[in-house]
Amino acid sequence: MNGAVALDRIRIVLTRTSHPGNIGAAARAMKTMGLGRLVLVRPEVFPDPVADARASGALDVLEGAKVVDSLADALGGTVLACALTARRRELAVPARWAREAALEAVASTSVGEVALVFGNETSGLSNEELALCGMPVMVPANPAYSSLNLGAAVQLMCYELRMAAMAPGDAPYLAGQPASFDEVEGFFGHLEHAMIDSGFHDPDNPRRLMPRIRRMFGRIRLEREEVGILRGLLSALEKKT
Amino acid sequence: MNGAVALDRIRIVLTRTSHPGNIGAAARAMKTMGLGRLVLVRPEVFPDPVADARASGALDVLEGAKVVDSLADALGGTVLACALTARRRELAVPARWAREAALEAVASTSVGEVALVFGNETSGLSNEELALCGMPVMVPANPAYSSLNLGAAVQLMCYELRMAAMAPGDAPYLAGQPASFDEVEGFFGHLEHAMIDSGFHDPDNPRRLMPRIRRMFGRIRLEREEVGILRGLLSALEKKT
Repeated sequence: MNGAVALDRIRIVLTRTSHPGNIGAAARAMKTMGLGRLVLVRPEVFPDPVADARASGALDVLEGAKVVDSLADALGGTVLACALTARRRELAVPARWAREAALEAVASTSVGEVALVFGNETSGLSNEELALCGMPVMVPANPAYSSLNLGAAVQLMCYELRMAAMAPGDAPYLAGQPASFDEVEGFFGHLEHAMIDSGFHDPDNPRRLMPRIRRMFGRIRLEREEVGILRGLLSALEKKT
Repeated sequence: MNGAVALDRIRIVLTRTSHPGNIGAAARAMKTMGLGRLVLVRPEVFPDPVADARASGALDVLEGAKVVDSLADALGGTVLACALTARRRELAVPARWAREAALEAVASTSVGEVALVFGNETSGLSNEELALCGMPVMVPANPAYSSLNLGAAVQLMCYELRMAAMAPGDAPYLAGQPASFDEVEGFFGHLEHAMIDSGFHDPDNPRRLMPRIRRMFGRIRLEREEVGILRGLLSALEKKT
């Protein structure tokens, strides 16, 4: 399945959020990772200008947010609900780490809708809320200070969902046009000629000089423009000698 | 090498940060993932109560932060500097995705210190700053809206560093004590007796009833307390019939 379609089948559910700024931060975090469906269970303050400000360019996510009265309403129609929990507590089922849970969540979108549920900033999810969710999820964190804020937790989970849903493709490398084989060989020929001409290189006593030169320039994968610069420099030096 | 030692060899460098709140958010994000070394290159406002407030329980990271005059000063003694960049631009060397870069950064801590460098909130890193860093790094994001805020970018990178440095161990499952073989068998014996006694189960015409029962309860991996509850229920039902 297309990764964007998978992400579109995942809703982020925030229950009983106290601070509207965190709702805005969550919307922004979602959109940066390509998620757009936000469900709010009894938010204390919403809509609110503070949420709008923190959402920055993700106002559309806030405007499309559904506000509902109960977590059960928010989970209607889902086949998997993941519950983010920070505390180690008695759990009815084994918790998954964030990365593993994201893989399962994305896989589950092929059979239906998925929810990720985040509790109140201070108290987290209640036991009743947790019981409605099939899969407790934890973000690996420093045991001495695991106090991720709500926006940060949403950001990390949405990032893992995107990583699970999308092959990110090649890392960007928008440098110049690579030099062709012929251009690189033309440079080596030019260089060898200049080395011989200057007396630096004696073809009858080569000392593995050219293989060493090739190895050195081979490692940097020359670009066309760079070959031009190097050959220009060679020509200038040749004129001088 | 110990994962915590690896994380201790990685410094987070923020250059020309405009908003003190973002410095505080970065400190909090670092500490949640077990990083503690923060270097600030010409911050606009620091120290500041807004930074302290956003740092929450990570005040120690702010208090230990080094403030320096130039990125070169911040990178002194490092063997690898990763530069976070959001824009696709002409890069001297190929960029890595966050996850791959985190693996390389952690691996490099075995030979020396490592820096992750984050630019100004609005303008990012300058070309001069980027040129001082060996490895451009990008966080995979929604191409239509890749506007991660500074705290979120630091959070994601520190999370990936922690994931690269630490085997997270088993996912937490602090449920009750699992029932022993004997306890589970005791339950099955009790159940079979009750089924026969009630006339529900005829051992001479078993219809694969017991294997089905075993399969069902086997999937639950009963806990000691649960066996107690089930047997108590059985006893109560037996008395009634």
